[in-house]
Amino acid sequence: MIPKSGPRIREMHITPIAIVDPPLLNAAGLHAPYALRTIVELVTDDGISGISEIPGTTAIDAALALARNLLIGRDVFQLNQIRRVLENHFGTDSAAERGLSPWDQRKLVHIFSAIEVACMDIIGKVTNRPVVDLLGGKMRDAVPFSAYLFYKYEGAGGPLEFGTEPNARGWPAARQAAALDPVGIVAQAKAMCHEFGFQSIKLKGGVFEPQQEVDAMFALHREFGPDRSAGAVPLRIDPNALWTVETAIHYGKQMEPILEYLEDPVRGQANMAEVRKALKTPLATNMCTTSFEDIPNSIAIGAEDIILSDHHFWGGLRASMTLTGICATFGRGLSMHSNSHLGISLAAMVHLGAALPHLPYALDTHYPWQSDEVIVGGRLRFENGAVAVPTEPGLGVELDRDALAALHQNYLACGLTKRDDEIEMQKVQPGWTFQAVRW
Amino acid sequence: MIPKSGPRIREMHITPIAIVDPPLLNAAGLHAPYALRTIVELVTDDGISGISEIPGTTAIDAALALARNLLIGRDVFQLNQIRRVLENHFGTDSAAERGLSPWDQRKLVHIFSAIEVACMDIIGKVTNRPVVDLLGGKMRDAVPFSAYLFYKYEGAGGPLEFGTEPNARGWPAARQAAALDPVGIVAQAKAMCHEFGFQSIKLKGGVFEPQQEVDAMFALHREFGPDRSAGAVPLRIDPNALWTVETAIHYGKQMEPILEYLEDPVRGQANMAEVRKALKTPLATNMCTTSFEDIPNSIAIGAEDIILSDHHFWGGLRASMTLTGICATFGRGLSMHSNSHLGISLAAMVHLGAALPHLPYALDTHYPWQSDEVIVGGRLRFENGAVAVPTEPGLGVELDRDALAALHQNYLACGLTKRDDEIEMQKVQPGWTFQAVRW
Repeated sequence: MIPKSGPRIREMHITPIAIVDPPLLNAAGLHAPYALRTIVELVTDDGISGISEIPGTTAIDAALALARNLLIGRDVFQLNQIRRVLENHFGTDSAAERGLSPWDQRKLVHIFSAIEVACMDIIGKVTNRPVVDLLGGKMRDAVPFSAYLFYKYEGAGGPLEFGTEPNARGWPAARQAAALDPVGIVAQAKAMCHEFGFQSIKLKGGVFEPQQEVDAMFALHREFGPDRSAGAVPLRIDPNALWTVETAIHYGKQMEPILEYLEDPVRGQANMAEVRKALKTPLATNMCTTSFEDIPNSIAIGAEDIILSDHHFWGGLRASMTLTGICATFGRGLSMHSNSHLGISLAAMVHLGAALPHLPYALDTHYPWQSDEVIVGGRLRFENGAVAVPTEPGLGVELDRDALAALHQNYLACGLTKRDDEIEMQKVQPGWTFQAVRW
Repeated sequence: MIPKSGPRIREMHITPIAIVDPPLLNAAGLHAPYALRTIVELVTDDGISGISEIPGTTAIDAALALARNLLIGRDVFQLNQIRRVLENHFGTDSAAERGLSPWDQRKLVHIFSAIEVACMDIIGKVTNRPVVDLLGGKMRDAVPFSAYLFYKYEGAGGPLEFGTEPNARGWPAARQAAALDPVGIVAQAKAMCHEFGFQSIKLKGGVFEPQQEVDAMFALHREFGPDRSAGAVPLRIDPNALWTVETAIHYGKQMEPILEYLEDPVRGQANMAEVRKALKTPLATNMCTTSFEDIPNSIAIGAEDIILSDHHFWGGLRASMTLTGICATFGRGLSMHSNSHLGISLAAMVHLGAALPHLPYALDTHYPWQSDEVIVGGRLRFENGAVAVPTEPGLGVELDRDALAALHQNYLACGLTKRDDEIEMQKVQPGWTFQAVRW
């Protein structure tokens, strides 16, 4: 049998959804009651469906719609060509397009990630292999994640009247509760680790004055640190680039004995390099080195030790494998960044995480903070802080079309068009403004 | 259908072969009448066969035999795990193991390349896709190669009585003829370009005093250069690291107006970096930066512009794609190195070459200097200097078992156990010795 071509894309469905998101605080402000995601479904001429999930904005949804005509009729295996076609149409992303927010706003990487993951899902289905096997096969049967702690206001997100009934109501009190000080953070950590079995902890900082956040880290250390009979839990903090170099070195030195790594303490590669020279603690980033274009200077000046990859922002799963190879070649570590997301993104992250030759750091995920789901069978489960690698062909998750419709209704009803944590914060603290460097 | 595992390796056949090789001169001496290759065949529990070809030595054949027990029973999709198992058993290669020869002598990369390519052949067959589609799909339908010119003695290689009847007897006179001066090299170039349609030319240098080789390049330039009505043919020369920095800069400057790139003029990254600063011509290497471990220093000091990859030496096809990503990230070009080889290696090179996002330089191949073949249907064809990308599942080439048996008989009869161009040269020029740097 001579294959003239692989399965071709016949349909492309782009569905923006809004998912209930709790009032989480971060350097950019406050999470809105809904987070936006976009679900992409490709259907082949044989009726095989492949899906993906990316951060949602009307700008990227519009670009995806423009991409449709470029994609219909193409063989899902020809991802190198698809990438080229999209590059030719949309241009390559510039560093400036990323923006100053903790999240990435570049167009091409989002679009290509959406298409690539959906195509890999189809390729997995037609070849009867899980996606991890398309990346060289799995190095582990389950992928560990960290407890992702947030300062937050009380609640589980949403005005719930928009339709879906989130599981949030079943959340333990400590996850529903406000966490605005070290005591609240420790309570949240205990609840998260108890419920999901996490064995690493990350605090999203950049919310309060550094001393308060450092106090929270020491409080976590007392609770989860080396004196703990169950074993020490690695700790990280991410001030989202809001600290000055001086602040980062001052508090970084205090935390040297208790941190696994320090994530984006300062803004920009040059500042990261300066902090890195001053501290023994490894530095990680998803804000200062965020694209292949950023890597040469990162290597040249020694900006960080660990890249927090994100297949949504680095242009898909194969590109993330290339990034892993670059990190291995240059003695850098690799772990994974996340935004609020559902199970399609989580499944893709798990397949990728399973294929990484080395996984010294538990990956980030916001997933426990979500309560909606868009996949058949509902929410994916964590066991001992890890998610089992799906063994079904493709991503191993399927669209729940009723849930998709309901979450799309949420999107239409909520009126949000992009993530803007500053506006949400101003509703609570009038006059609050985002500052790229605050302390 | 839930796939519990992919096809598992049931059998592994390692067959050393000797192929007729012409008396080609190079920095290391003279090609023996036979070149050694090793053909690896993996057979799955379903009886599906995958094949690969690597440079042959008894040392690597023995290591492959040791690897057999580690491989039997493994799922061919689990290449990340297979790599790890081989690393754990054989250790990672050290730079010293590469040796000073123009060819690479490291163990792990050879073994893993042999296994990976054979597994990719199987994966392609079970998924009904050509290997290129496992690398993201093809960017071009045919892959261009350069005319690879050699100083040589008269003849097409072999004592022919060893069995196979090479096509060599059908060679045009100019390819059979000796080429020991610029006139001979130009005649060879015309014959090669006429016969195969090549549109780039490389001269293997490091044989004669630099002035003679530079004269040959200028003679080629007069014949194929910008005044040519059919269009200029890019020219390269490879002195195989035999020149001093002073010599390389002196002759490099002379050749600046006529060279596409200068390959390995000097030995070692530091010397390459010095030459690179002095010349406008891009430098290429397959001798100074030959592994992922070599890359950080190459980048740090600017040792070269173009890496000549070789999937046999870089650990397979996916690793070569990673190398491409590294080169793209750091603004380096990528092309391909070759040794004497048959059609299995050529097919793998073509699949890889087809998947490369950019292919600004025609690839190297010794293939026109071989006359034997081990694949069904005989020797692969060049059209306009390019080889069409196979569209059949897997590599698209199958073992000719009669040819394999005959070439294995050649191996047994010829008595060679490894490549040693110095000994061959001494048969012609008694007392000749290899020098790492000669002029």
